[in-house]
Amino acid sequence: MDVAFVLYPRMTALDLVGPYEVLAHQPEVTAHFVAASPDPVVTDAGLALVPTTTFAALDRADVIVVPGGAGWAEVLADGVVAAWLRAVHPTATWTASVCSGSTLLAQAGLLDGRPATTHWALRDELAALGAVVRTDRVVVDGSVVTGAGVSAGIDLALTLAGLVWGDERARFTQLFLEYDPAPPYRAGAPESAPPALVALARRAFDAGRTAGTGPGRTW
Amino acid sequence: MDVAFVLYPRMTALDLVGPYEVLAHQPEVTAHFVAASPDPVVTDAGLALVPTTTFAALDRADVIVVPGGAGWAEVLADGVVAAWLRAVHPTATWTASVCSGSTLLAQAGLLDGRPATTHWALRDELAALGAVVRTDRVVVDGSVVTGAGVSAGIDLALTLAGLVWGDERARFTQLFLEYDPAPPYRAGAPESAPPALVALARRAFDAGRTAGTGPGRTW
Repeated sequence: MDVAFVLYPRMTALDLVGPYEVLAHQPEVTAHFVAASPDPVVTDAGLALVPTTTFAALDRADVIVVPGGAGWAEVLADGVVAAWLRAVHPTATWTASVCSGSTLLAQAGLLDGRPATTHWALRDELAALGAVVRTDRVVVDGSVVTGAGVSAGIDLALTLAGLVWGDERARFTQLFLEYDPAPPYRAGAPESAPPALVALARRAFDAGRTAGTGPGRTW
Repeated sequence: MDVAFVLYPRMTALDLVGPYEVLAHQPEVTAHFVAASPDPVVTDAGLALVPTTTFAALDRADVIVVPGGAGWAEVLADGVVAAWLRAVHPTATWTASVCSGSTLLAQAGLLDGRPATTHWALRDELAALGAVVRTDRVVVDGSVVTGAGVSAGIDLALTLAGLVWGDERARFTQLFLEYDPAPPYRAGAPESAPPALVALARRAFDAGRTAGTGPGRTW
């Protein structure tokens, strides 16, 4: 089973590595890290990941995982990921996105009139791209699975593991990853975080975008 | 503020990338990815990460993050990470480990008689190395912070962010990462998972170790 993990500049590393840790260890899986070129891809805060193949070379996959990240707007503008998705999604059993990766699925036409989720600060943008936006953490619709922001990739991938290999395998994986989360604060969603904090985060997010640097995260 | 993220072969990528996503975006932080050589480091399931410096070159850091992973036993045997920790920990304000990374802190003498946590399957090993093992998800003891298995690195790093920059900054970060976890199963800890699953996972873990491949994850 070939799993393609999509890489692009200024992607959010955790969007990818959460699903990677869940999926890439499964004994049936061969993991591919696919990017525009073979050069290392520098993610959102400086960590560089090494591709194993390119969009030009990889023309099929059983599972596709598309992360989000600050580089989302540039990748949406250049259209390279969406073009690859249009070609390769028909070969896949499952296509998944985490965070703003959903906008790339939408650009490729995979979410037209279909339910999907995304990072909380990008719900309007995803709706404008044609999706029926849900606020769920994970949305499964046919062969397309979308996750909310960043850390939701772990929940998404465990859900996907259950669909692909069954609940018992997914539970085994969750136990190995000791995924028994205990967030130190109640601040992980706009519905539960203090309203003043949500307003502050949205301003920071929008300021980063206006500055042409994609969704920002400046404190 | 210099944050050193330690890399070594067959480390668990998520152990590192969870804390990276929380800490490396903070405006005060310069992130360093430190390894034995400048060559890319292949993690547990094939994803390669690129170091920015080496153990020989980096002689100080304000914060140190040591991941765990299947390569833990080899790194414990060769002693390179522990030797670096002995030299650099005295320069740091905080030294943190995730998962089996705790055994490397113990080998460096940082956990002698001190409370610490680790991956659930390695509690006996950590105790044998001199730590007072707790089953908590995150343990803060003086300048040393330890986390439980793999995904606990996110909780650990948010806890650390609160200690370094205050609760409001940590909440802001949690909201940006949309860290509002919703595990699809109740199977993330040996105390909550079905006993038969815990026994299966422990056999797989021990089998991987006996085979000389470190803690295994074979289904």
